Amino acid sequence: MKLYSSNLLWLLGAEALTGAVAAPSPKVPWARQMQKAAAHSRRMLNAAITKRQATNETIESCDISPAQEIDAPKANVWGGLTQTEAVSIVEWLFGQPELNLTTTEEATAWDNTLLIVELMQPNKSDALAYIDGNSCAPTRYAHAILNFQNSSEPYYQDILVGPLPVRNGTTRWEPLDYFLTRKTEGKVRNLDADADTLYGEWHYSVGASIADITLDLWNATMMGLDNDTLIAWGTDPVLQDPETGRVQRWDSFFSVQDDIFDVGSILPMGLYFLTEIRGRNVEDWSLDGWYYDGQFFATTEEFREAYWAGDVRKYDGNWDNEAFHTDQSGPIPPMDGNAPPVSVAPHGARFAVDEERQYVEWMDWSFYIGFSRDTGLALYDIRLKGERIIYELGLQEAIAHYAGSDPVQSHIAYLDSFYGFGPFNFQLLPGFDCPSHAKFLNSSFYTSETTVTHINSICLFEAEADYLMMRHSSASYISATKNIYFSVRSVSTIGNYDYTFTYAFFMDGSMSVEVRASGYIQAAFYAHNEDYGFHIHDQLSGSMHDHVLNFKADIDVLGTANTIQMMDVVPHTTTYPWSNGRQVNTMRVNRTFIETEDEGKFNWSPSGQVFITNQEERNRFGELRSWRVAPGIGTSHLAVENSTAIGNAAHWATHDFYATVRKDTESRSAHPYNSQDVHDPPIDFSAFFDGESLNQTDIVLWLNLGMHHVPQTADLPNTVHLHAGSSIQFIPTNYFETGIQRETVNMIRINYDGTENGTEVETFGAHEDTCALQYEPQDVDLWGYRGDSVVRKFPFSPDEYYKTHPAD
Amino acid sequence: MKLYSSNLLWLLGAEALTGAVAAPSPKVPWARQMQKAAAHSRRMLNAAITKRQATNETIESCDISPAQEIDAPKANVWGGLTQTEAVSIVEWLFGQPELNLTTTEEATAWDNTLLIVELMQPNKSDALAYIDGNSCAPTRYAHAILNFQNSSEPYYQDILVGPLPVRNGTTRWEPLDYFLTRKTEGKVRNLDADADTLYGEWHYSVGASIADITLDLWNATMMGLDNDTLIAWGTDPVLQDPETGRVQRWDSFFSVQDDIFDVGSILPMGLYFLTEIRGRNVEDWSLDGWYYDGQFFATTEEFREAYWAGDVRKYDGNWDNEAFHTDQSGPIPPMDGNAPPVSVAPHGARFAVDEERQYVEWMDWSFYIGFSRDTGLALYDIRLKGERIIYELGLQEAIAHYAGSDPVQSHIAYLDSFYGFGPFNFQLLPGFDCPSHAKFLNSSFYTSETTVTHINSICLFEAEADYLMMRHSSASYISATKNIYFSVRSVSTIGNYDYTFTYAFFMDGSMSVEVRASGYIQAAFYAHNEDYGFHIHDQLSGSMHDHVLNFKADIDVLGTANTIQMMDVVPHTTTYPWSNGRQVNTMRVNRTFIETEDEGKFNWSPSGQVFITNQEERNRFGELRSWRVAPGIGTSHLAVENSTAIGNAAHWATHDFYATVRKDTESRSAHPYNSQDVHDPPIDFSAFFDGESLNQTDIVLWLNLGMHHVPQTADLPNTVHLHAGSSIQFIPTNYFETGIQRETVNMIRINYDGTENGTEVETFGAHEDTCALQYEPQDVDLWGYRGDSVVRKFPFSPDEYYKTHPAD
Repeated sequence: MKLYSSNLLWLLGAEALTGAVAAPSPKVPWARQMQKAAAHSRRMLNAAITKRQATNETIESCDISPAQEIDAPKANVWGGLTQTEAVSIVEWLFGQPELNLTTTEEATAWDNTLLIVELMQPNKSDALAYIDGNSCAPTRYAHAILNFQNSSEPYYQDILVGPLPVRNGTTRWEPLDYFLTRKTEGKVRNLDADADTLYGEWHYSVGASIADITLDLWNATMMGLDNDTLIAWGTDPVLQDPETGRVQRWDSFFSVQDDIFDVGSILPMGLYFLTEIRGRNVEDWSLDGWYYDGQFFATTEEFREAYWAGDVRKYDGNWDNEAFHTDQSGPIPPMDGNAPPVSVAPHGARFAVDEERQYVEWMDWSFYIGFSRDTGLALYDIRLKGERIIYELGLQEAIAHYAGSDPVQSHIAYLDSFYGFGPFNFQLLPGFDCPSHAKFLNSSFYTSETTVTHINSICLFEAEADYLMMRHSSASYISATKNIYFSVRSVSTIGNYDYTFTYAFFMDGSMSVEVRASGYIQAAFYAHNEDYGFHIHDQLSGSMHDHVLNFKADIDVLGTANTIQMMDVVPHTTTYPWSNGRQVNTMRVNRTFIETEDEGKFNWSPSGQVFITNQEERNRFGELRSWRVAPGIGTSHLAVENSTAIGNAAHWATHDFYATVRKDTESRSAHPYNSQDVHDPPIDFSAFFDGESLNQTDIVLWLNLGMHHVPQTADLPNTVHLHAGSSIQFIPTNYFETGIQRETVNMIRINYDGTENGTEVETFGAHEDTCALQYEPQDVDLWGYRGDSVVRKFPFSPDEYYKTHPAD
Repeated sequence: MKLYSSNLLWLLGAEALTGAVAAPSPKVPWARQMQKAAAHSRRMLNAAITKRQATNETIESCDISPAQEIDAPKANVWGGLTQTEAVSIVEWLFGQPELNLTTTEEATAWDNTLLIVELMQPNKSDALAYIDGNSCAPTRYAHAILNFQNSSEPYYQDILVGPLPVRNGTTRWEPLDYFLTRKTEGKVRNLDADADTLYGEWHYSVGASIADITLDLWNATMMGLDNDTLIAWGTDPVLQDPETGRVQRWDSFFSVQDDIFDVGSILPMGLYFLTEIRGRNVEDWSLDGWYYDGQFFATTEEFREAYWAGDVRKYDGNWDNEAFHTDQSGPIPPMDGNAPPVSVAPHGARFAVDEERQYVEWMDWSFYIGFSRDTGLALYDIRLKGERIIYELGLQEAIAHYAGSDPVQSHIAYLDSFYGFGPFNFQLLPGFDCPSHAKFLNSSFYTSETTVTHINSICLFEAEADYLMMRHSSASYISATKNIYFSVRSVSTIGNYDYTFTYAFFMDGSMSVEVRASGYIQAAFYAHNEDYGFHIHDQLSGSMHDHVLNFKADIDVLGTANTIQMMDVVPHTTTYPWSNGRQVNTMRVNRTFIETEDEGKFNWSPSGQVFITNQEERNRFGELRSWRVAPGIGTSHLAVENSTAIGNAAHWATHDFYATVRKDTESRSAHPYNSQDVHDPPIDFSAFFDGESLNQTDIVLWLNLGMHHVPQTADLPNTVHLHAGSSIQFIPTNYFETGIQRETVNMIRINYDGTENGTEVETFGAHEDTCALQYEPQDVDLWGYRGDSVVRKFPFSPDEYYKTHPAD
């Protein structure tokens, strides 16, 4: 779930970010990439949807349109800072002497740095006044996170900067904690300040102290040598004793990969050590024990003594090998060498995009795209036929909670927004991650004085489902309606795991959010781990873990005055007027309303339905116009109860479904630094539940996707998306008078009477122009793929867009 | 869920069958259809995958192959009777004087007829000896169902005829009940023998008796007049009193459709009458009451008196109207007139078919296709890499159990195999039901001296999923594997409902079975029905119902000695050697084996996994090589407990999952005539559970797909497949040493180092030939669609294949 290299905790520093996220030498400007791409345009996959001259009498061509350009009706008030804003804020913050900031590049572990600058999301009330009314756009403010490391007690701090644009005299900064449940001026302790020391000096000294054993066991060392083949990493969050306040961590030895494949997370060696971190001086830290072969040793001496006395079993470790590599391997299946079926877009894109404002229209849907470092892609002001259905829909946090017999797996419960979904939202692969005919957008965020732009990291595409929207056949006719849908997708690879996020929109007015996971599992050493996973390779256990991904759905059904209705299908025994006193065993529906937040958390019932409705809005048949929220492919919540590893940091993970009153002060269910103080985190989601009425009020849903993952041999080399997916659907219910799936012309009716001339075909005017598509399966140039980011470092002129470094 | 026309119960008669299932005048031979298709071949959709000459320097073409022809390794012993066999059996049976058979065409309600002739499925042990060994193919027998109506107590009888081929002297018939739990020589009473009388004489007389009221209410009658606009139909199964043996039925008035659209099931009028059927003489039948506006009236006189006294509210009825029609309606969404994306097959089919033996190979998968009147499509001997995974996978029965305040909805619980999935397995629509590049197969069955062949009623196709099989990206490379899968599909429309059945196969070795429902709902009259559905149109309630579809999965994991293992993810609190006495709140897996059939029925647990395994077969890491069975999109079982409507006829519907010891005597979970004697049905599934050991034995799973359906306005005009789907997956677990998804060449790896020339692309030899596809969206000829069957009636010469009538 995470980077497991020795620079694990450097991720928030710019060097690691530009090193790990972008390619090592990110000096190639986007402009040059584009030029190269243009030169290859004939061979680009997009050629498939480009107009060509008709060269054959039997084929006619017609205009193929790329995504239509459109002007968004309003500014995208969730879309992030402009380049100009970001640069001016950074300049201004560096000018505030009380902050004492050092650029990330020059900062030591004892310097204050600026981690993140992003747009402060506007309050919903302000945003609605703008997007629904005649008000001006909300005044813009920036949200920044500072890392105050110039202290024996380092801390992060959320601050608000504004109003924007920056003007000396009017612009101020202030501590920001109104959206936090903990009121400490936005300050959260920083347990990562000495990551360099930990992964360097400390680990090397530990490694050296038992080099005799690691050499004997594996002919390997972790001493800071060039030929080291061991590293260590471990518990995340670190152990935080709720009573004593002690901070400890268990680390595990891992071997290092020796090929390009990113196998680090499946090379555990089965040896673990416990460190107590006491303050910032490594002299005060202590090595408090070892764990190997099911035995705990309080000191290195005890361990050494037992080891050389032959009192522990010697296990081989896990080493990089071909079985862990993703390249084609094994017998190629018959006919697999031929090109498989593929989706093509004969008439090009059938949607419209405002690229600058990141605004999209497809059929009767429209929405704005937002993007943040912490949680990546989010959608705002999702409308159907001009009516808002969801104000905000986006990821809040993802946990991957492991369990195991060893102290590392047992304490790993990654809270991924700490690492951020934005920084790892890599360039998408056309023809693989998204169809070749997809439209690709960039995404940007600003961190450590650096604007990072991921090229082509969001895709938009239509596809035809492999089943119809609706059909019916009788003795005299058949009618069938195609199921064409639209998707918005991004993929974030957080260390070993790749999460594919897809928001899909359908012609019946429903939509869905889906997550699928792939990439490398994080595995455990197999010894004594039987109760926590399968034995999946020689020395490897597929370490069991729960994925839970929390999404905020600020749903607005015909306004913001909403109520939640539950409808259960239940067995029922009763008599009826017609049953002559006889009891009938049958079923019925039971309907209830959720009254308060006390009833606002629950799990999906297999026989229940959940609706968001506005009790003032009934259709002409008297039914409440509603939106149903329902699991699609399986969802799950955390199996662990009162987790020792996470304390109060993830109370959003304990149920499938939560509903709370929407408040500006409860805008996010989690904070990226919840991991830094798990028992008293900046946002404790459980504090949202204080019994307020959910009757006809603005309701926010917090919905969990996820799965219980017990990896098996088929998770090697990589987990397959097929069985690691989760989705939730939003379905209009009694909302329209009849199904709007009938509005599309992509349907057909054929009448037949069995006679030779009796067949009539009605096509409803669907794509009446005859078009031809010339598609070349190999006409793909993926040599332009960089997996790269455009990185522009401060100071630079925001007007010179393609200039990425001051020196360029 | 059913035909609701006045000839509801004629379905098993040939006239209704060829009338309702095939087109009214099925006299066009298949040959002529094929000739016509050939003449139009240039414009056929298949042209899209036909080799074309290269006409453009930038495009090269290469061979496009249709489905490769292949010879099945063995005969298809499940594939049905040959024409010759069927005809000879019919001839032979008509020659047996004790049966006293009359051809269906000539039969009255008092004549004995032959309903069905089909292949008796071989016993598994015999089949395995043949397909796995050197034995000869099992001796073939036919299974026939006779309808003995020449009796005051008419009955159906299952008989066995054989051995085949028919030879006078050696061929015999005998009563067949060894696969029934009720041992009555295969005889089941026939409650349908007087359907003509019921829907004719009886209903017309009832309609005439209250014509004054129907005219006053709706200006409509049901009296057998040409201008009647009312019909009646009702409870199914009929009411069967378990104590007295009384047989009653409630019927509801419906208006009749006045356009081509098949809206009959959504036109209830809210008026119901109760009939007691006493024997076969209509003089002995009685009208036992009326129900209207929530009131029961014991006699017509009581009802009439109350009506004309103004003691009942007068409701308008439901009439055919445009809101119920499926044709395009409402504003066309923007850009919807352009052709949407579509799947194409640039290299043609990548699978192989033996059409005669209905045998298919795709990649490392192979299977045989079977087909039957009762349950339609089934797959046999499903193998992956030559190893059998599933011996038999197919539908057993489908129930649609309604509930409502009125006596008709309250007693409708259709058991669809009574009508049969085979007869309604219509021709598929290329480009809609299946991609235009699909391969289509025919299906046949033999009923009422008639061989019915549905042209192009099974399709085989590959498609690319809209998400990858697996992917991983890092700072230096990205790897991605396409998710290409293979589907086998058929669609059966049982009256108002269309069921799309899809068996899908994946490159990771998993497979799935999926059902989606569309078509017209069956609706209720809205008055007093609030607790049983939404009010969805002026006088219409979306009548709540449960769909449960039972599938048999005779799974064989490394042989037939199998065991079921359960693995649950559970919260766990414990101390560890390393935890210094501290309790850790975490989770673990609990594994148990199902010991006997007593534990063999359960519902899916959100935190549990179910494996079928062979305890003697462990992989080299010591784990059991297993196949996981898991719900995909939602499944469900029946909400009704101890249903009054169905008695003992559907005990297979009460749970999600059942496992029993496989026996030749327990080959099917339901019998198509279970509805005829619901309290003592021919197959009572609950009798399969008698505590036998499930430890290392041949296990059959009976798995339910389904959904709780509470129709809402968007179910008009037709239910959308999107939210009416259900699936189950079969997933290899610790079965292979690593994931076989790595064997495909349809993957890519791109290395990048951020420099301009640093990108390397590895394509693994995927489709290296450059091919071009010229695709024309409009190049489709659906004028050849007939919705037709090729029907050949007895007596005819089986050698003259295209001769469908003796007179032709």
